[in-house]
Amino acid sequence: MSHTIRDQAKLLARVRRLHGQTAALEKLLTNGTECSAVLQQIAAIRGAVNGLMGAVIEGHLSVHLVDEPDQAQRQQDLEVVLQVIKSYLK
Amino acid sequence: MSHTIRDQAKLLARVRRLHGQTAALEKLLTNGTECSAVLQQIAAIRGAVNGLMGAVIEGHLSVHLVDEPDQAQRQQDLEVVLQVIKSYLK
Amino acid sequence: MSHTIRDQAKLLARVRRLHGQTAALEKLLTNGTECSAVLQQIAAIRGAVNGLMGAVIEGHLSVHLVDEPDQAQRQQDLEVVLQVIKSYLK
Amino acid sequence: MSHTIRDQAKLLARVRRLHGQTAALEKLLTNGTECSAVLQQIAAIRGAVNGLMGAVIEGHLSVHLVDEPDQAQRQQDLEVVLQVIKSYLK
Repeated sequence: MSHTIRDQAKLLARVRRLHGQTAALEKLLTNGTECSAVLQQIAAIRGAVNGLMGAVIEGHLSVHLVDEPDQAQRQQDLEVVLQVIKSYLK
Repeated sequence: MSHTIRDQAKLLARVRRLHGQTAALEKLLTNGTECSAVLQQIAAIRGAVNGLMGAVIEGHLSVHLVDEPDQAQRQQDLEVVLQVIKSYLK
Repeated sequence: MSHTIRDQAKLLARVRRLHGQTAALEKLLTNGTECSAVLQQIAAIRGAVNGLMGAVIEGHLSVHLVDEPDQAQRQQDLEVVLQVIKSYLK
Repeated sequence: MSHTIRDQAKLLARVRRLHGQTAALEKLLTNGTECSAVLQQIAAIRGAVNGLMGAVIEGHLSVHLVDEPDQAQRQQDLEVVLQVIKSYLK
């Protein structure tokens, strides 16, 4: 079973919170709220996205690299996540 | 005029795109889509958030530090944005 | 006076520590030390580089944008630091 | 064989280049060079550290998670690298 299905409920809860945060940001901008509140809301959204990415990367590594018995499949699944990890190392 | 009001239309367009991306991510998870598509969608959302943050930081520095004639006000407005910049330098 | 001259002693102390950390990393690799120590040393070096960058960006913004009376000069000095800040927002 | 031994020559070459870059940064600061050159040199060092980290993470994942036949050992080696990956997701 893929980790995104195994962890579906937790991941959906994170995404719905993120959805709420972007709706709140839209309201701040629509209301012309001063910029430090806007900066803080974007920083909070960034934290939520990084937390979500961390959870999915951890799930991927543990299900598809640790728990996967077939070495060739592990190699294939490494390539999927390596690109995303390296995008954070720029 | 605050930069978040000056740039309101452009910033709102970015936030609405981001809102659409999170809705699309929710659908991928609800449909049990395989994880590499989920990873790529989160990476795209991360890119959108970073782009949005870059636009707001640039607006803040140019309106509140370059265009602002009063040095004490510039100092105050530096502190607002410095915390956010340093959060990226962890 | 440029901030890198104003803060020269503090910045040089940071760079010499960083220099020592890279020498220590070289020794870990030469001695074939197991990889978790190598990973931790690189993470420590990354933290030192980010701290150094934060100090120089803060110095640049405060000396060249807050304390600088001439608006055109402030605009020029914004462009110098904006590229570096945006490189962290990728 | 640990990946840091397997890749020793390549990793040492990267570290020695990094060592040279920090020595060059020290000279820029000692000579009171203007700050945009200092900012660029720190950005170059940051890129070198991130490249080094990416190479070691990739080596760790491929040797200790893909090539390692024992699942319990794979689990142990996941924890070593997960902390470092998550430090980039802050």
